[in-house]
Amino acid sequence: MSSASESPDKATANNPLKHPNSRITVLTSHFTATMSSEKDAALAAAAAPPPADAPTIFDKIINKEIPAKVVYEDDKVLAFRDIAPQAPTHILLIPKIKDGLTGLSKAEERHCEILGQLLYTAKLVAKQEGLEDGFRVVINDGPDGCQSVYHLHIHLLGGRQMNWPPG
Amino acid sequence: MSSASESPDKATANNPLKHPNSRITVLTSHFTATMSSEKDAALAAAAAPPPADAPTIFDKIINKEIPAKVVYEDDKVLAFRDIAPQAPTHILLIPKIKDGLTGLSKAEERHCEILGQLLYTAKLVAKQEGLEDGFRVVINDGPDGCQSVYHLHIHLLGGRQMNWPPG
Repeated sequence: MSSASESPDKATANNPLKHPNSRITVLTSHFTATMSSEKDAALAAAAAPPPADAPTIFDKIINKEIPAKVVYEDDKVLAFRDIAPQAPTHILLIPKIKDGLTGLSKAEERHCEILGQLLYTAKLVAKQEGLEDGFRVVINDGPDGCQSVYHLHIHLLGGRQMNWPPG
Repeated sequence: MSSASESPDKATANNPLKHPNSRITVLTSHFTATMSSEKDAALAAAAAPPPADAPTIFDKIINKEIPAKVVYEDDKVLAFRDIAPQAPTHILLIPKIKDGLTGLSKAEERHCEILGQLLYTAKLVAKQEGLEDGFRVVINDGPDGCQSVYHLHIHLLGGRQMNWPPG
């Protein structure tokens, strides 16, 4: 996660729709300037965990208060490109209604339907993105898992050979 | 994935139930001796893709023909420890009935229920394993994703700080 001051899009920060990557500047302004990775963000989040029902940056994306490169949307799921991609294709899929799902560790039996829908949508988006050679799906939970935003999200990565171990 | 000849359990290979880790020897006999990682296994699988309905090593685990360290089982899901763990806790969760789900990319709408059940079970197993500090869930699809066995499976990893990118 590059800081706002390091962003090549700084010059267009006042016009977030002008440059295709300009939302990087907009979104990273929500993080500290020294935050250099998802891992740092995860550790920072762990040090000061937000309340379970606290809004996150994803609520602003769902509400269109912050622009995002949306690649898929239906009434339950929103999918958009990660602002700090780790592969040629790197998309986040989130439930539009959080319903207490700050992370997978908070899942209850009632969440099975949305969990299945999220994974199935990941498959649809992978196909839409032309990832015929394969892809990886990742869910981070808590500080050990590198979770940085406490609204359940699935990472879909593809377009390159993924390695092992998975981080 | 160590080869059978490198396994410390070689001496107990004829008695797979004698040593707690002896199934490593049994399982690795299904792979080539030079196969050194999930990535190699994935590339080998991609070079000679099996038919969609071909049985895999997981069928033998489900049918108890091969011993595995099972940590959870119900009528739909089986969870057991990975033979080549990449973290202190590394568990695989699989649907007991494959129903065409060789990988996530083959998911159809009818699979949403089992997909949700698998993710929810991953949460239950994470709790059972005491992963309060977090965990990572990974699904590999196809050669780019490092998929090595063509029976959908979820990797659950925890017990250490996971890094970013996820492989």
